[in-house]
Amino acid sequence: MRYCSNCGAPVSLKIPPGDNLPRHVCERCQSIHYQNPKMVVGCIPEWGDEILLCRRAIDPRYGLWTLPAGFMENGETTVEAAARETREEANAAVDIDALYTLFNLPHINQVYLIFRGRLLNLDYAPGTESLEVKMFREADIPWDTLAFSVVARTLRHFFEDRRAGEMSFHLGDIKSSAANRDG
Amino acid sequence: MRYCSNCGAPVSLKIPPGDNLPRHVCERCQSIHYQNPKMVVGCIPEWGDEILLCRRAIDPRYGLWTLPAGFMENGETTVEAAARETREEANAAVDIDALYTLFNLPHINQVYLIFRGRLLNLDYAPGTESLEVKMFREADIPWDTLAFSVVARTLRHFFEDRRAGEMSFHLGDIKSSAANRDG
Repeated sequence: MRYCSNCGAPVSLKIPPGDNLPRHVCERCQSIHYQNPKMVVGCIPEWGDEILLCRRAIDPRYGLWTLPAGFMENGETTVEAAARETREEANAAVDIDALYTLFNLPHINQVYLIFRGRLLNLDYAPGTESLEVKMFREADIPWDTLAFSVVARTLRHFFEDRRAGEMSFHLGDIKSSAANRDG
Repeated sequence: MRYCSNCGAPVSLKIPPGDNLPRHVCERCQSIHYQNPKMVVGCIPEWGDEILLCRRAIDPRYGLWTLPAGFMENGETTVEAAARETREEANAAVDIDALYTLFNLPHINQVYLIFRGRLLNLDYAPGTESLEVKMFREADIPWDTLAFSVVARTLRHFFEDRRAGEMSFHLGDIKSSAANRDG
C-alpha cells in the first residue's frame, strides 16, 4: 500500500496514537488502513467412501490436486462460502456439515477453514478454475501431487478419523512455506 | 475505496474478466482490490467457576461488558490473537484451549472465533480499551449490559454446556444488526 484508498494521497507507515503496531496512515486525510488475515474456506465433498478433488487450472500450483476452497467474500457466512466454492470449482452441490479443520498460515496471513460436505449427487464438472474434477477412494488419493500441505494435512486427519470411527475438529498451524509447499 | 492503493489513480467498480463479483479496479495500473471479511478473535478466560469480562472504554458499546476479543493481525495465529487480545484488554495471562464458538456476522463482514482460555493467575487489570475488568460467577453475569449478542450467545452456550457436563464447539450466524445489538 502506497496511496490512501480514501483520498489518493501518499500513506506512510507509523504507529497511530493508542495502537502498538505500524499501520498505513494517510498524510492528508489521516485515514488508518488496517490489513488483516483473510479466510480461505472450503470443504471435503463426500459421497459414500469417496471424496471429490479438483485439479487446479490456475496458479499457484497449476495442475495439482486440491479440495474446493477459496477466499471468503464479504456478505456471506463460512458455510455459504464453502458451498459456493464447491459450486464454482466443481459445479457440485453439497450440504455443508461440521467444521473439520482450521489451519493458521501466518506467513501468508491466511486462515483455512475446511468443513465436511455431503455431495447431493454426482453431477459434477470442472469449473473455470479446474482442469479436472474426480472422485477418489482413500487408496487412490494423489498424495504426491496435492497442491497444498493444508489439503494433505486435512485429508490425513480425515482418513485417520474415519478409520478410528470418530470425526473430530482439528486445529493446527503451518508456519513455513518452504518446508510445506504452501503458496 | 475511491483511489488505488498501489498507484493513487481513481478506481471503478467492475467485474474483472473471469470473476463474477464487482471489484474495485484501478483505471491506470489495473490492480484489482479485493475486500474480504475480517476475523475477530478472543477467549472466555476461566478461573474455577468464574470467568473474566471487560467493560469497554471504547466505542461501539462504550461502558458495556464483553469478552476480551479483537481483530486478528497479520502474522499471527488465531490462538496467538486470542491470547494477545486478553493481554491487551485485561492484562491477563491465559493458556488458550479449544475453539469454542464461531459466529458469522455477514452484515458487517466479520467472523468471530472465541476460544476457551485458562487464566494462569488473578493478576489482571484494565488495559487501555477497558474501563474495568472483573471475574463473574454465572449468577452474576450482567446479561442486560453485555456489549454484543455474539458475547451473550457464546456465554449462554458456555453455561448450558458446563451444566450438561460436556463442552462442544458451536457454529452460528448473527444476521441482523438491529435485532441483535451487534455493532
